[in-house]
Amino acid sequence: MNVTGDRLLSTKLNKAPNGVDSMKPRITVITIGVTDLEASLRFYRDGLGFPTQGIVGKEFEHGAVVFIDLQPGLRLALWPRSSIAHDTGLVAGAGNPTEMTLGHNVSSKAEVDEVMAEAKSAGAVIVKPAHDTFWGGYSGYFLDPDGHLWEVVWNPQWSEATE
Amino acid sequence: MNVTGDRLLSTKLNKAPNGVDSMKPRITVITIGVTDLEASLRFYRDGLGFPTQGIVGKEFEHGAVVFIDLQPGLRLALWPRSSIAHDTGLVAGAGNPTEMTLGHNVSSKAEVDEVMAEAKSAGAVIVKPAHDTFWGGYSGYFLDPDGHLWEVVWNPQWSEATE
Repeated sequence: MNVTGDRLLSTKLNKAPNGVDSMKPRITVITIGVTDLEASLRFYRDGLGFPTQGIVGKEFEHGAVVFIDLQPGLRLALWPRSSIAHDTGLVAGAGNPTEMTLGHNVSSKAEVDEVMAEAKSAGAVIVKPAHDTFWGGYSGYFLDPDGHLWEVVWNPQWSEATE
Repeated sequence: MNVTGDRLLSTKLNKAPNGVDSMKPRITVITIGVTDLEASLRFYRDGLGFPTQGIVGKEFEHGAVVFIDLQPGLRLALWPRSSIAHDTGLVAGAGNPTEMTLGHNVSSKAEVDEVMAEAKSAGAVIVKPAHDTFWGGYSGYFLDPDGHLWEVVWNPQWSEATE
């Protein structure tokens, strides 16, 4: 098979059986595994001031969950690691902060400083204080009570992200 | 100090030094740690059809990264775990799929099936085939090449998430 043929086959194999590109580039819920749901709720609701109805779904085994409304079309969910493991059949492992970072873009360096201060007051672990970055921005990292890594970022090239 | 005073102090401590609630409920970038940036790019760009300019930032040490445009105001970033570790000073650990799930809501059960089939064709590991959920929805789980867990979900109560 020639190169063109290989490419055609590759393209074909990468499509769903119905021949269309089914999956849209969209994430609607980010679920983070937690150990103590009440403690995580306190951090996000009381510490950071994120809006939530609190713990819901207690009527189901492994159903207790916290939903936080982020920008329109996106929710953050706090769910026990043990429930994620139960629901998926995967083994719940230890936390690993280099697996994922949640980026919170803001519109100025001063706002990075303010958010980092608020996170620290809420009990976050400051992993890296706000600093000028190698790519021309300004950012800091903190960990939530379960070791999930947040980056607070001012990126002068991404102003639309914070409008 | 009486209870009211404790509450006032607690409230005060949870605010930034300027006295305002600085951090908005917003996530603008989800960065997932990867081992092989090229392989991860192929999965998301060629396998799932997600839009991206490919690898950028190679001019910086530890700068090589892939940005994928999701819905307006949200990007997915693929970044080597070693770069996350370097940038944060944290130790890069092993993957752990129960740390986080990325939820992809769709508008019908049939669409869940289509997306799961497309992910499988792209090389995803099917962790749990699409099935009726305990809370009245329909979903399936798959893992990307780095063990990041996606849930494809039809939630009849969240139709606005897929508009």
